[in-house]
Amino acid sequence: MNAELIAVGTEMLLGQITNTNGAFLAKQLSELGIDSLNQQVVGDNPERLEAAIALAESRADMIFVLGGLGPTPDDLSKQTLAKHLGVALVEDAPAMAKLKAYAKQQHHEMTANNRLQAMYPAGATVLTNAVGLAVGAVLEQQGRTYVLLPGPPREFEPMVLNALVPLLLKSQGEGEVMVSRVLRFFGIGESQVVTELADLIAAQTNPTLATYIKPYEVTLRLTAKAKSEQAATALLDPLERAVQARLGEFFYGYGDNNSLAAEVVRALAREKVAVTAAESLTAGAFQAALADIPGVSAWFKGGFVTYANRTKAKFLQLDQSAIDRAGAVSEYTAKAMAEGALKQASADVAISFTGVAGPGPSDGIEAGTVWIGLAAKGQPAVAALHHFPGSRAAVRGRAVKAGLFTLLRFLQATEKQG
Amino acid sequence: MNAELIAVGTEMLLGQITNTNGAFLAKQLSELGIDSLNQQVVGDNPERLEAAIALAESRADMIFVLGGLGPTPDDLSKQTLAKHLGVALVEDAPAMAKLKAYAKQQHHEMTANNRLQAMYPAGATVLTNAVGLAVGAVLEQQGRTYVLLPGPPREFEPMVLNALVPLLLKSQGEGEVMVSRVLRFFGIGESQVVTELADLIAAQTNPTLATYIKPYEVTLRLTAKAKSEQAATALLDPLERAVQARLGEFFYGYGDNNSLAAEVVRALAREKVAVTAAESLTAGAFQAALADIPGVSAWFKGGFVTYANRTKAKFLQLDQSAIDRAGAVSEYTAKAMAEGALKQASADVAISFTGVAGPGPSDGIEAGTVWIGLAAKGQPAVAALHHFPGSRAAVRGRAVKAGLFTLLRFLQATEKQG
Repeated sequence: MNAELIAVGTEMLLGQITNTNGAFLAKQLSELGIDSLNQQVVGDNPERLEAAIALAESRADMIFVLGGLGPTPDDLSKQTLAKHLGVALVEDAPAMAKLKAYAKQQHHEMTANNRLQAMYPAGATVLTNAVGLAVGAVLEQQGRTYVLLPGPPREFEPMVLNALVPLLLKSQGEGEVMVSRVLRFFGIGESQVVTELADLIAAQTNPTLATYIKPYEVTLRLTAKAKSEQAATALLDPLERAVQARLGEFFYGYGDNNSLAAEVVRALAREKVAVTAAESLTAGAFQAALADIPGVSAWFKGGFVTYANRTKAKFLQLDQSAIDRAGAVSEYTAKAMAEGALKQASADVAISFTGVAGPGPSDGIEAGTVWIGLAAKGQPAVAALHHFPGSRAAVRGRAVKAGLFTLLRFLQATEKQG
Repeated sequence: MNAELIAVGTEMLLGQITNTNGAFLAKQLSELGIDSLNQQVVGDNPERLEAAIALAESRADMIFVLGGLGPTPDDLSKQTLAKHLGVALVEDAPAMAKLKAYAKQQHHEMTANNRLQAMYPAGATVLTNAVGLAVGAVLEQQGRTYVLLPGPPREFEPMVLNALVPLLLKSQGEGEVMVSRVLRFFGIGESQVVTELADLIAAQTNPTLATYIKPYEVTLRLTAKAKSEQAATALLDPLERAVQARLGEFFYGYGDNNSLAAEVVRALAREKVAVTAAESLTAGAFQAALADIPGVSAWFKGGFVTYANRTKAKFLQLDQSAIDRAGAVSEYTAKAMAEGALKQASADVAISFTGVAGPGPSDGIEAGTVWIGLAAKGQPAVAALHHFPGSRAAVRGRAVKAGLFTLLRFLQATEKQG
């Protein structure tokens, strides 16, 4: 199955609105195993819309027209498609009843344009609109499927999820299922992932592999098609084992809706570990990332932003002259910060950050140089040196994720020992 | 002038990312009077990209290829366009120097794919990338203009604004210049801005007005065309005065590359005021936002993340029983946190945050309820109650910006008195 999406609306050509519907529908289709190789955007112009439909017919067997079903004179998608296919528009009785009730409630007369919202191309299956007034439609003709969907996302998204997807699933019938597994990695770039997996990527047919760049991390999506979910999973497992054998040291979790912070908070809860932090260059961003996760309050009570040596000494009860001697960006200071925070916050583990965010060097230390310290109750503090590339924002963002990764690996090691 | 935008990326066809670049560029082009009648999206596939370019050539005289300039093997836009036009790829020396410096900072070897990012089709004008490594390009051939732009929005948007638009303006010739002025607002939604300025927006010809939604704020771009910069500015001034008369209470600064945090840090420096913070629900995000700005270290030495009542009392030397009685989310606690932070950090002004980020209520207080406190040396502490809409992330994000806005207005008032 090969789909083409045509989004209709002059507002998109003028950049007044973003085509979010295209991404939303494409994602649903790809999960159904329906590929799309092309998308188009055209304005509210019947000639250009018809040309777009004709172009789509030359290369796709499912054609989705997004938008242009409303009551204004420039909403022409339904009429254009019906004319192109040589079918009449007919009335959907429930939708027309809804329109009439709406007009009555608003004390408005219905216009001919209003009535058009309740009409659909003869022979089509109506997609009901739970939120608005314009119905959608799915029409089969000469081996092709044509789908009309409304433009406003708050009408579009529920219609796709609740009316269109169930219909497509049913029509796939006997069909195959598609199962995806997303692996998340930190500490390795996309180009290095691609290099490490080059032979697997080159050989891919079923399952397939695809990398995605996320902020300072990389995800890998493995997708298998098979007769059953079980059969698809059986295809994914050996591929994942091959990937993990090469990249396991960078792997931290599964799923599109996941993050290093979420994995850390789950591990804190499993191990019943209370965490704190003392942050210099990241200045609170690590603690803010932890607090993105609901439920963190059981394992995170607070911490410190110690930007200057003076506040490092004062807030964490450290010897300022020792810090001044070692330098703010040093192994000594990273360890001392973690130990001080651990004690002051009465926590089980503390993470510390000290480094040069940039732009430019500081005290002769180049931008991107970051020490991350970790102190845990009853263990000697440790610290690791990192060199992060990029802008000030990138150095700080990478440092936060490296701190989360450091903490996650510590918690996982604790788990194994326990 | 008739433009066609081709966004390249399999991620868009899979619905994993939304084509925001298309809307961003279309808006800029429409401000320049350049129409676009069609947009396309294609995957990372050289044959389909070349077909898309050929199709665009049949109906447009400016062809923009968005994305596919990165270092991975599926980044093929540059190579595909160069092949299609029969030109070689040549090296941009400054971009190559930047690549080498980046690789050195990261302690990594450069690959051939990395090098490609610094190359461009022979004969093109290079568009420098202020944020990332891949250069863009503008090439004229047989009466058509071909433009290559990078995919990541944080690279794409500055390249469009700072490199592409000035070049297009220059090539529009006839000595007309276009001058834009960006006004930034916090505390008002886009729809309210549009309502307040409805008559100005309806009447716009030259200058024009356009609103843009940024994270938890709105910007307004006024653009005038005239024979000289001075003449354009003379057109902008009265329009800005009309806007300020209506929306001045929400205005905080000028420019695309500006932020509440940057305005705050400039005001701290002007007034020589040292700031600190005590954060509960924002958990360090306010301090991290301040520290985004280079040079902040002169005016920000550190602060506190006091997520639990116990840490509020301990770190800020407050009476925990009084906090427990008043409740963590209360005017009393917000003021006490600001006063405690001010004293403990020996600062001139302190901001505090306490509230319910959600999802869902906490201790009977609904999500979005946030107290923001402010304490300054020699003045009684104040606190204001906010109700922020949206998700946990939105509530925390809005709280951070509201804290910055609160601090900015305080510093501006101090300035006036001074």
